[in-house]
Amino acid sequence: MIQEELIGDLKLKWKRIQQAMQKIEADGCLLTVDVNLYYTTGRIYSGYFYIPAEGTPWFFVKRPNGLSGNNVVYIRKPEQITETFAKQGLKMPGKLLLEADELTYNDFVRLQSVFNPKETGNATTLMRTLRMIKTPREISQFRISAQNHVATYAEIPECFHPGMTDLELQYEIEKRMRKNGSIGLFRAFGANMDIFMGSILAGENAEVPSPFDFALGGAGMDASCPLGANGTVLKEGTAIMVDMAGNYTPYMTDMTRVFSVGKLTDLAYRAHQVALTIQNKIESNAKPGTACADLYNAAMEIVEKEGLSPYFMGTKQQAKFIGHGIGIQINELPVLTPRSKEELAPNMVFALEPKFVIPGVGAVGIENSFLVTDTGIEKLTRCNEEIIELS
Amino acid sequence: MIQEELIGDLKLKWKRIQQAMQKIEADGCLLTVDVNLYYTTGRIYSGYFYIPAEGTPWFFVKRPNGLSGNNVVYIRKPEQITETFAKQGLKMPGKLLLEADELTYNDFVRLQSVFNPKETGNATTLMRTLRMIKTPREISQFRISAQNHVATYAEIPECFHPGMTDLELQYEIEKRMRKNGSIGLFRAFGANMDIFMGSILAGENAEVPSPFDFALGGAGMDASCPLGANGTVLKEGTAIMVDMAGNYTPYMTDMTRVFSVGKLTDLAYRAHQVALTIQNKIESNAKPGTACADLYNAAMEIVEKEGLSPYFMGTKQQAKFIGHGIGIQINELPVLTPRSKEELAPNMVFALEPKFVIPGVGAVGIENSFLVTDTGIEKLTRCNEEIIELS
Repeated sequence: MIQEELIGDLKLKWKRIQQAMQKIEADGCLLTVDVNLYYTTGRIYSGYFYIPAEGTPWFFVKRPNGLSGNNVVYIRKPEQITETFAKQGLKMPGKLLLEADELTYNDFVRLQSVFNPKETGNATTLMRTLRMIKTPREISQFRISAQNHVATYAEIPECFHPGMTDLELQYEIEKRMRKNGSIGLFRAFGANMDIFMGSILAGENAEVPSPFDFALGGAGMDASCPLGANGTVLKEGTAIMVDMAGNYTPYMTDMTRVFSVGKLTDLAYRAHQVALTIQNKIESNAKPGTACADLYNAAMEIVEKEGLSPYFMGTKQQAKFIGHGIGIQINELPVLTPRSKEELAPNMVFALEPKFVIPGVGAVGIENSFLVTDTGIEKLTRCNEEIIELS
Repeated sequence: MIQEELIGDLKLKWKRIQQAMQKIEADGCLLTVDVNLYYTTGRIYSGYFYIPAEGTPWFFVKRPNGLSGNNVVYIRKPEQITETFAKQGLKMPGKLLLEADELTYNDFVRLQSVFNPKETGNATTLMRTLRMIKTPREISQFRISAQNHVATYAEIPECFHPGMTDLELQYEIEKRMRKNGSIGLFRAFGANMDIFMGSILAGENAEVPSPFDFALGGAGMDASCPLGANGTVLKEGTAIMVDMAGNYTPYMTDMTRVFSVGKLTDLAYRAHQVALTIQNKIESNAKPGTACADLYNAAMEIVEKEGLSPYFMGTKQQAKFIGHGIGIQINELPVLTPRSKEELAPNMVFALEPKFVIPGVGAVGIENSFLVTDTGIEKLTRCNEEIIELS
């Protein structure tokens, strides 16, 4: 049954890819990057997935040994792909799509010379656009991730003991994540986006600007991994923002909750409530057809009216977005920025994360994962959204 | 003091890069991939490091805000790099090196068009070759990793309880790794080499072939992360191979030890001793000038004499190497394969990992990290190498 459901899901994705290819008059699409292989074949292997604009796809496998099935061909090098084309009488693509924003330069050039197409298009753009609209099976995977994400966060108060550091708290949470089924890997799109299982920001560390395209920063525990917890002692009056991965299936939910040691300043509590107001307003108004840029603008309007602009999405460096698509990677399309061109559409899944950094206290605010339905948006990660005091 | 030591280390690396550039008549080298930025600047940022064949390097930074120092220039896009060149009167490189095996196709092409050099060479090849020979500071980082790696493995027997699965054991070890300072990230070179903190192989799962370039496989807990532990119950007669990352500094040691639940078969114990014999023979004979291919051949000679070829480095799929360089990435140069062209040289650091997979039992064998000295090789990861029975 699961196998049949998986195959049905793959066939639906293949059909969507072929429809999109036909629109841009592409003849073939060759995928080899892990997330695209997983998306189109349900597994990660060393090799290639080739889909023509019409007809059945082919699986060219270097490793592992022992895979079998229709159109599975073992190869040692990409040159053997086109040898198979010749043997099987397959049409060589005039316009070929390759993953131009993911393949290395040398790999891309080698594949281009193997196929020698008249024209080469960008499979990364095509796949990221298609992956934005989730299939029923993908949505059910998000629901499982959400459930385990919420269950893990419910255990966070037990992880705390007075005098501990943010890192010690994180290690306890990580272990509970794994026991609740976290796969561990936290996949992101783009260069140098290395992050380990998520981020905890406490106190002044929340102000440290990030080298990455994430909402907030933090110094991290080492210069080779400059993000999140840095050994800050969780003392009285500190806000602790927990933004750990929801990778309980390959489809990650994204969720942030805030905890406090003792009481925070009035400004921190007020900013947190404003974040909830932003979220709730967007939750009430967003629906298919809503421009993603409008969501950002709606948030900024509230922030400015409340006079909280200096704290919104950072202080020393402020991120210019309030949310992003999620999926196999944590930063899929759409992006909720003032310049976004996308509109919400049914079966998009995105994280909404209005956050404030309060100097001397830490970060407050909220993040939840939402599914775009036919009539509005549905919150997937449902649990207490107030600041929870630890003791 | 640490700061001075770091700067001295960076200057040594810059000098080596410039010497290597002069040999191949390259005029400039632009680096932007995380591991190369860390190697040359001691941090990871969003931006570029530019080093001319002679003179001082430049740091072009997009994020984070707030970096300062000589030759630090903030930019929003790579086109501003060459604007800075014009403003500062810097010579445009005739031959430019770019990271052709790491940059995406589109990023590479964009940088190439920004600089428009007469010739473009491969910075990946240059950097991987240079990074093979470690600096004194790098070697001291390996020693710290080794110490914490050994300390963590010493805690493994406490992690075990009868009836647990390989994954449950792994979660306990992961937590101890973190408490002992593991940074978490397990960086690898090459496409799709995603791995989470290491691998534990128990029982029949040790036979499952890998899609990756790692020594052994294992089904993993999910098709999106197909490597290592898969939920195998650790029952009587099972060998448990623990090969968890030594990422206690950015310079990772690599070490494998084998544990057993109750007693294993005679074949398993014999194969383990043969692995130790291979290691010890190589440890006695290897020195600067030894061909890496000869190390592989020396191992194979013993394996064949003992009649253990069907079990060496896997059963259903056998890896054709017995070791690999280590560093910021787990698979640096040299590689110990029958086709390796490299010879050992002082200050290389590599992992040696003769392993056998015994059907129905699991994997046995050994892995340690070695430093090439002026006269031989020195084992960095020193602790009990026998199979340890858990109870």
